[in-house]
Amino acid sequence: MEQYEAIQQAAYDANMQLPALGLVLFTFGNASACDRDLGVFAIKPSGVAYEKLRPADMVIVDFDGNTVNGTMRPSSDTLTHAVLYKNWENIGGIVHTHSTYATAWAQTQTDIPIFGTTHADHLTEDIPCAPVMSDEMIEGDYEYQTGFQIMNAFADRNLSPEEVEMVLVANHAPFSWGKSVEKAVYNSAVLEEVAKMAWLTRQIRPDAPRLKPALIRKHFERKHGSGAYYGQE
Amino acid sequence: MEQYEAIQQAAYDANMQLPALGLVLFTFGNASACDRDLGVFAIKPSGVAYEKLRPADMVIVDFDGNTVNGTMRPSSDTLTHAVLYKNWENIGGIVHTHSTYATAWAQTQTDIPIFGTTHADHLTEDIPCAPVMSDEMIEGDYEYQTGFQIMNAFADRNLSPEEVEMVLVANHAPFSWGKSVEKAVYNSAVLEEVAKMAWLTRQIRPDAPRLKPALIRKHFERKHGSGAYYGQE
Amino acid sequence: MEQYEAIQQAAYDANMQLPALGLVLFTFGNASACDRDLGVFAIKPSGVAYEKLRPADMVIVDFDGNTVNGTMRPSSDTLTHAVLYKNWENIGGIVHTHSTYATAWAQTQTDIPIFGTTHADHLTEDIPCAPVMSDEMIEGDYEYQTGFQIMNAFADRNLSPEEVEMVLVANHAPFSWGKSVEKAVYNSAVLEEVAKMAWLTRQIRPDAPRLKPALIRKHFERKHGSGAYYGQE
Amino acid sequence: MEQYEAIQQAAYDANMQLPALGLVLFTFGNASACDRDLGVFAIKPSGVAYEKLRPADMVIVDFDGNTVNGTMRPSSDTLTHAVLYKNWENIGGIVHTHSTYATAWAQTQTDIPIFGTTHADHLTEDIPCAPVMSDEMIEGDYEYQTGFQIMNAFADRNLSPEEVEMVLVANHAPFSWGKSVEKAVYNSAVLEEVAKMAWLTRQIRPDAPRLKPALIRKHFERKHGSGAYYGQE
Repeated sequence: MEQYEAIQQAAYDANMQLPALGLVLFTFGNASACDRDLGVFAIKPSGVAYEKLRPADMVIVDFDGNTVNGTMRPSSDTLTHAVLYKNWENIGGIVHTHSTYATAWAQTQTDIPIFGTTHADHLTEDIPCAPVMSDEMIEGDYEYQTGFQIMNAFADRNLSPEEVEMVLVANHAPFSWGKSVEKAVYNSAVLEEVAKMAWLTRQIRPDAPRLKPALIRKHFERKHGSGAYYGQE
Repeated sequence: MEQYEAIQQAAYDANMQLPALGLVLFTFGNASACDRDLGVFAIKPSGVAYEKLRPADMVIVDFDGNTVNGTMRPSSDTLTHAVLYKNWENIGGIVHTHSTYATAWAQTQTDIPIFGTTHADHLTEDIPCAPVMSDEMIEGDYEYQTGFQIMNAFADRNLSPEEVEMVLVANHAPFSWGKSVEKAVYNSAVLEEVAKMAWLTRQIRPDAPRLKPALIRKHFERKHGSGAYYGQE
Repeated sequence: MEQYEAIQQAAYDANMQLPALGLVLFTFGNASACDRDLGVFAIKPSGVAYEKLRPADMVIVDFDGNTVNGTMRPSSDTLTHAVLYKNWENIGGIVHTHSTYATAWAQTQTDIPIFGTTHADHLTEDIPCAPVMSDEMIEGDYEYQTGFQIMNAFADRNLSPEEVEMVLVANHAPFSWGKSVEKAVYNSAVLEEVAKMAWLTRQIRPDAPRLKPALIRKHFERKHGSGAYYGQE
Repeated sequence: MEQYEAIQQAAYDANMQLPALGLVLFTFGNASACDRDLGVFAIKPSGVAYEKLRPADMVIVDFDGNTVNGTMRPSSDTLTHAVLYKNWENIGGIVHTHSTYATAWAQTQTDIPIFGTTHADHLTEDIPCAPVMSDEMIEGDYEYQTGFQIMNAFADRNLSPEEVEMVLVANHAPFSWGKSVEKAVYNSAVLEEVAKMAWLTRQIRPDAPRLKPALIRKHFERKHGSGAYYGQE
């Protein structure tokens, strides 16, 4: 339907960028775009090859995970997207990949330490790794609980989803988000690059120190605050 | 001959995908497609460059390794394919590559541990590494024995080739298979990606734990069993 | 304006080469070209995607960092470029990237040791890593101070910017330069390759020795001195 | 001149394949093709970008390193090629690269151990690393002595250049050769892949054992000897 075309197109474009950026193999990822006025998001159908996708294939789902429009089954990770859209009111797009380096960090169940300004230009915290889910959560509604596992990790650490737009889920893989799905795609590529750099840094120097506070603060202020001076806006 | 065209085309397409997916350098791989009604499979000729291959070049071989149709010598690994088709009745395609990360694991003679859900989405066991062959097997009919070495490893561990569609052969390289040769190609790409992720995981955290049982079970059930909900089928 | 067209075109071409050479992701880099007669340089505007850049977008800046021509805000690293042009009279182009391997070395705060002739063909010193900036420098005029941090590192080690055309800034990333911006781009690609080789060398053999003095001297003489015999000039 | 066209074309094609195969950055490599009847070889001119090369630019040089035809200066590694052609009568092409993984092994001054059948399908020895040259050799006629350093390493280990068609020169980089320059290019790509696999093997398992003798022998016999059965010949 016409009212969904904008988010279907945005979700489609975002999904198509994931293999182009080297972030997904086959169908190992999904992107969604949200329309807050309509209270729905458009998401990739489950297990369909990227080369066969069309914008109109994007399934329209509400924030409780009910399919509102579309004939195909939505991505198996749809409930995770729904939980995040429902609870985090300022995000407009979500991306999930199994990108190689970020997923390897997730498999180690550890945060990605902030080692340099490439990282600090995007977030001034270690990239959090939400802990392994309890057996109860796994055996319950798994994808729904994955959304809560992410939210709980942010609550426990007092992190804001507007400041930290990416997370690892232990033994699983990364999720990223942003004001738009374009920003969420950008964040997933940044996360993969930062994950690779952090791995290399540790390989060269196992005791490499985290970035010092003055540099973290400086890079935060360059992009935020009253004196921000990065970009054209 | 016309009756072989379907498997020749399928084998050809699969062989051509291997360099496109970055899984083979030069001629370091081969794919075959099986027709169980005819009791034969089509396989790449030995040592021919991928850019010169044509569908009609695929050699037709029976399950004892005899060439039934074709003027070129079949792949030097043909007998391994023949043994697997003869003994495992439900497989329709086989792929052999020397893909970089999977081959490195094979060279270490160790299984690839299950570290995350990328792995568990495809198989819920460590990826088995068949042990180094005995001198007697090597000095006998080497490629034929390679097939038995793979089958013996599955029998010893009580693994099913319908559940675990990939194996490493120690000091050699991976084999994968599936209901179709398309699925076998898919599995060889998944294996390479999982092999890379497992290597990185160990590099970042040498004592990284295997995926916990509840997550292994959950991912098995997502794709199998009565409540399966992945994909469009 | 017409007088700036040559350096705008050179800076544009150089900026476009950075993603083509795999040295930058999104907008994580910038290149500038200098006209010493006019006392200005052309540099990429801040945060503009490479695919949208046009030569006329290059901002013209003087050696004190003042915008002389152009409507967009120049790169946030502009003051670092300005300081280097002002103080190092023989350089005509500068490139800054966050290329993966060089940035990982920067994050370890260590020099890249000279392990082989690939390195020695370009410079006969370890690639220097300027130390982490003091809190005072960071909290002052950060990008301006980054330029001084680089110059101080060269002064402390008695290095010449004509002989050593690249540097790492600790916890940040590499800068390179040369007589022209084309040479600066070339140097940034060489640095990334040498950084990768040095990492691999240490991985294979943690106590790998530096290149011995006779080989360092020989490679210096092949490209410099009266008996130089590399290239067509 | 017309008589040189065949080797000029062969050398040109080979040089152009090096960047296509990912084996050289910029001009970090050279390939030559030999005509034994004429007693000359065609080699890339020094320091010319690959995208500007034409077949007629290939310089014709005799086995003592004298330029016989051509206006450009031949590759700075020409004397190494000349020494090998003069002393090893059965080789028809030589390739020198600074390919990343092979060069890293060279920088560690160690042989690449034979860990698997990918290696054994091409040579049944560790890939030899010629030792670092003595100061006398370096300060003498460096590139000429590099050729002797390679030949001495083969003589000391009793290796045949017909069986082992590749070598590392310590702290420098690899050389490969073959009956034709096409085979030499092939060998340089094989070497790079085997070098990467051997590095990964050691990373996963530092004490990984060498391939056992029965497998080495088997793979030697598959390609050589009276019972060879690999390829179409």
